[in-house]
Order: sequence, then structure tokens, then C-alpha cells
Amino acid sequence: MDDPPSTPATYTPTARTTGSRARERLAYDRESVHAILDAGYLCHLGFVRDGAPVVLPTLYARVGERLYVHGSTGSRPLREAGRNDAGVPVCVTVTHLDGLVLAKSAFHHSVNYRSVVAHGLAHQVTDQEERLLALDAIVENAVPGRADDSRRANPKELAATAVVRLDLEEVSAKSRTGGPNDEPEDLGLPYWSGVLPVSTVHGAPIPAGDLSPDIPLPGYLTAR
Amino acid sequence: MDDPPSTPATYTPTARTTGSRARERLAYDRESVHAILDAGYLCHLGFVRDGAPVVLPTLYARVGERLYVHGSTGSRPLREAGRNDAGVPVCVTVTHLDGLVLAKSAFHHSVNYRSVVAHGLAHQVTDQEERLLALDAIVENAVPGRADDSRRANPKELAATAVVRLDLEEVSAKSRTGGPNDEPEDLGLPYWSGVLPVSTVHGAPIPAGDLSPDIPLPGYLTAR
Repeated sequence: MDDPPSTPATYTPTARTTGSRARERLAYDRESVHAILDAGYLCHLGFVRDGAPVVLPTLYARVGERLYVHGSTGSRPLREAGRNDAGVPVCVTVTHLDGLVLAKSAFHHSVNYRSVVAHGLAHQVTDQEERLLALDAIVENAVPGRADDSRRANPKELAATAVVRLDLEEVSAKSRTGGPNDEPEDLGLPYWSGVLPVSTVHGAPIPAGDLSPDIPLPGYLTAR
Repeated sequence: MDDPPSTPATYTPTARTTGSRARERLAYDRESVHAILDAGYLCHLGFVRDGAPVVLPTLYARVGERLYVHGSTGSRPLREAGRNDAGVPVCVTVTHLDGLVLAKSAFHHSVNYRSVVAHGLAHQVTDQEERLLALDAIVENAVPGRADDSRRANPKELAATAVVRLDLEEVSAKSRTGGPNDEPEDLGLPYWSGVLPVSTVHGAPIPAGDLSPDIPLPGYLTAR
């Protein structure tokens, strides 16, 4: 994770392996990128403001070869994407942390993870049909089954919502799996080594205080 | 989360509340910032490359009013931070996702979260004592107790490791808690509403394949 590619990869349907670390891989293939994106719903969106980087967490969804993020029409990168036909440069990064890798040496401590970094020009989506599709997709990506089980946005709400699209063109996937890669001369040291698994879990749903007791928990929530 | 402050907050020991959302808060106070930073160890580091934003996941630690991240000396932002005495502009964002908020309307769907966004100029740390302290802190922040229970970096490893510091000056904390904020006219709709809690958990440690069976699991791992 501490050795990122110095130039972003172009999205081509082939796979390559970096040589620097045994089990660390830079994957350019479509399937890896999609799998990592589809396994999450929170991304970190980077943009440039007055020459300085800004990184904000937000929800996203993938639809085919497009990433959608949404937000208030008042938020700066979304406003700029709306004003600028050429689009605004963004970076969308999705990271799943899978484990802490504890080696005999501090130097070889690492993390197991899967990440996707997508670069490109973000465009504000103005087509109404595409906007509705993107908003449904963002809800569905976080909670599959939910879009049909909630009230969709009315015209006033739609007008207050900006939807931004980033085409998946300049995108790379990177991941690490497996145990520590210790130096042979360190293997006799008296320290425990291995992996502490990390995962993100969903707990039992908590009903809203104003929810009628007549409304049961939907199946798409009991199944999680 | 979709309505970020348009200008970053200055770090002052007072707290303020944004008016736009009932339970969404922009906190400037030191305690909130520290608590959110100390509850995590993975950040998203943003920097600017050729005018475009780049966002990469990496480990961090807070020591007092300083954030440290480390990486290979070959990685670009760290190299640039080393070449440039004035520092390079970065944004470090830490996000803890606490829940998916399901409202009656798609529009009021939201997330519960805690996040810190720190802006500023990153400097490469050259002082050897500070470098060692920072590396220990990064290991300790991820796995408390581990720095003393592993082999510390030797001179060759230290030379291959870049440590970058960002002083916590221009930093803001933001969080959301609680249930959905539905429109009164939506409360009668037949959809379930509430919160699906989300948390990050650590599983049972997995010993390395080459670990001697004589070495027991350390206490700092059994306690997690």
C-alpha cells in the first residue's frame, strides 16, 4: 500500500503483476476493478481546490463502465462539474481493508487490502433519466432492494441533488493478500507473526423512533 | 456527508454546529478531531499530480498535533515532500462509517459517520529520532503493543522508508448520528425506516505459516 504506481494505469483487459512485493498486485483487468467497486459503497473523492487537494468521503455506485457519486448542488466539486462542460479532474478511490499483517520486523508490517483508484474528468449528469438511474443505483449499491422500497425523489428533491459521473477509463486495482513476507534471518526472532483479519460488518437494523410497529423488517435487511 | 464545508475550517478549540441538518455537525474542537483520528489507522491521502488529484490509502498515526504517514521513498508525494523544503499540499481524510440511514424517501437516505479532513503542507521528516518515533507510532496506532514486540527498522530499512508529517492546523471533524430525518408528510408511507449499523471488526489472528508453534499469541492480540 505504501508503494503506489507512479503513473496511473490505463484500463485494458489484461492483468499484470508488479515485481516489488510477492503478493502485492496491480491489476488492470475489468473484472478485478468491478469486483472491488461492487464490494463497497463508500469512496473517497479527490479534487483540486485553489491548487490544493481535497478528499471527501461519499457514496457511489458503478453502472457498467461508469461511476456515479451524488451530493448537494451546493457542494463545490459538484458545482464546478456542472459549470464546466470539459469536466473537472477527480480521483475516486475505494479501499477495502482485509487485514493487518504483522511481520517479525516493523519494516515488513503491512496490510491486506483491495483498492481501486479511478482518475478522470467528472461530468455533472443533466439527463433526467440518467440522474434517476444513478440515484437508484447509489441506493441499491448500499442496500440492495431498497430503491423499490422507498419513495423516489420528487422534482424539488431532484433539483437539489447533483449527480456526477466518472467514466471508468483510467483505473487500476491493487490488492495484497496472505501472510507476512519476513526476511529469512528474522524467522527465528521470538515475535508472533501472522495476520489480524479486518472486516466491515452490518449489525441488527434499528427501527426509526417514528416507525409504525405495523411495518415489518424487509427481507433485504434480514438477509444481511 | 454530501454537503461538505466549502472552505476548510481552522483548528480552534471551539465547537460549532451547522444548521443544514439536524444531527450533522461540523466540529472544530481538538478533542473531537483527536478522538476520530485515534479511532482509526487507515487514511486517504490526497495530493496533486500534474494538476490532477490523486487519492491513495495509507496508514497513519497521530502524535500530539502531528499526523505521520509513511511509505516507500520511491512513492511520488513522499519524494516531492522530501525535495521541497516548503512542503507539498496534501489532504488527509479519515472516515469511520457507523451506519446506513434508511429514510422513507430516497432523498433523505444518509449515512452515520465520523470523519476528519486535515489540509496543509506535508514535510518529509529527516530527523532520525522523529522518524523512529513516527514509525513506532504508526505500528502502535494499528496494533497497540506491537512496536515493542517486533524488530525495529535497521539502518538500511530506515533509509528505504520515507516519513511524512502534516501538522494539525487546518482540520475539521464532521459526523452524523441518529435515525432518519423524514419529511412529516412521508411518515405514513409503508416503508421500513431506521439505521443499519456498520462497524469494522477484527477477527481471530491467523499465525504465519512459518511461525514457530512455541510462540504464543501475544496479549495485545487476544484482547482485541
